[in-house]
Amino acid sequence: MENIIFGKNAVLEALMNSNREINKIIISKNIHSDNKLNKIKELALKNGIVFQFVAKEKFTPYAEFNHQGVIALISPIKYMDFEEFIEQKHENSSIVILDGVEDPHNLGAIIRTCVCAGVKGLIIPSRRNALVNSIVEKTSAGAINHIPIIKVNSLTNVVNKLKENNWWIIAADASAKDNYYNINYKDMNFAIIMGAEHAGVSKSLLKASDFIVKIPMENNFNSLNVSNALAAIIFETVRQKNCTIVK
Amino acid sequence: MENIIFGKNAVLEALMNSNREINKIIISKNIHSDNKLNKIKELALKNGIVFQFVAKEKFTPYAEFNHQGVIALISPIKYMDFEEFIEQKHENSSIVILDGVEDPHNLGAIIRTCVCAGVKGLIIPSRRNALVNSIVEKTSAGAINHIPIIKVNSLTNVVNKLKENNWWIIAADASAKDNYYNINYKDMNFAIIMGAEHAGVSKSLLKASDFIVKIPMENNFNSLNVSNALAAIIFETVRQKNCTIVK
Repeated sequence: MENIIFGKNAVLEALMNSNREINKIIISKNIHSDNKLNKIKELALKNGIVFQFVAKEKFTPYAEFNHQGVIALISPIKYMDFEEFIEQKHENSSIVILDGVEDPHNLGAIIRTCVCAGVKGLIIPSRRNALVNSIVEKTSAGAINHIPIIKVNSLTNVVNKLKENNWWIIAADASAKDNYYNINYKDMNFAIIMGAEHAGVSKSLLKASDFIVKIPMENNFNSLNVSNALAAIIFETVRQKNCTIVK
Repeated sequence: MENIIFGKNAVLEALMNSNREINKIIISKNIHSDNKLNKIKELALKNGIVFQFVAKEKFTPYAEFNHQGVIALISPIKYMDFEEFIEQKHENSSIVILDGVEDPHNLGAIIRTCVCAGVKGLIIPSRRNALVNSIVEKTSAGAINHIPIIKVNSLTNVVNKLKENNWWIIAADASAKDNYYNINYKDMNFAIIMGAEHAGVSKSLLKASDFIVKIPMENNFNSLNVSNALAAIIFETVRQKNCTIVK
């Protein structure tokens, strides 16, 4: 379970002090609006933090807490700011962008793979994607502390900004024509976009990509686990960087 | 949870008819021996089925079943016989051998990767390895039905038999000198051995291998998820087979 801050006062305080990263705020549909709740919504909006009105059943796992119908889900880690990342000097660097990977075990495995392959950052959207919770932290086997995790509100904005900064954008999609190993990953900064477990990379991001690549399947069975698909692609980029002659 | 057969009569019947594959029989330390129990042990021994005497607490998850202190854990799939596999005609085929992969999620992901990469069989030991249970089946996303799973009592015997039949044996180990992509996987039958999540491939199997390979790590952090490590290696073998010139 994610770490939480519960109760109107505590959530409000966390929003005002913002020394803790808030992933999401959930508010029970059954509670009445008041000044504090309005302030919570106002600050969440201002800081780009998602808040959702949910049925009171969603609070069942938190029954032991005196939550007053308001809970902030917080991350055990501090996310890096994308602006800070893009302003760093990068040379032959790779990053990975996740577009809707919802399984925390997959996110944890992806973080490990990224660290092992020397990926410089992992970008995840603040909605429709697993955020870093205790399952992710555990599955990552400590890797979470070795790579900046960058949480953003708009992947489209990030991709555009990366392109402005001369990063190449490569999306993985099962229906692509090119095989992932036919791209030359040397001598450039590039981002690999991996899509949701079922839906894949969203159309707008596919359109914004410089390359779309697939992993060729040797069977009609076309359903690779997303962390395994990333492992195949990202270690091919490592192989290319380490080999003098690439064919 | 694995499928189970419970109670002395049912377990005995399953052993005698053997139309269901039994992974393991667990027997409570607290029950008294009788003719049926003796017969169960005798048949298990004869058929090479592991049986264990366990504390009665181990039966807590099965409290709803009238198990009489005897439960057979059965597989939802029928394993293939290694002898049957090795007698098939193989050309430029690959198989994967797991030496102690205990996490069923990892086993499920590995099965998917094997099917996607056209691997011809997956060999697992009957002890110290996750067997195919309902978690594995679920995580494999149906891939389990597209590849023979071969359960064996001795991986050493299997490796020796493969070598006699001109298969090349390649073990993955973090302390290897060679990088996995420096091996030529074309024009041969080969087996990739992946080790346990923590302990790696056992020494006896490393000794029996023709090649030991590592995945080069770009960080000091050296802890790849086993299914992701396999994905990196196995798709390199696919890449080599699909590419005319390999360097």
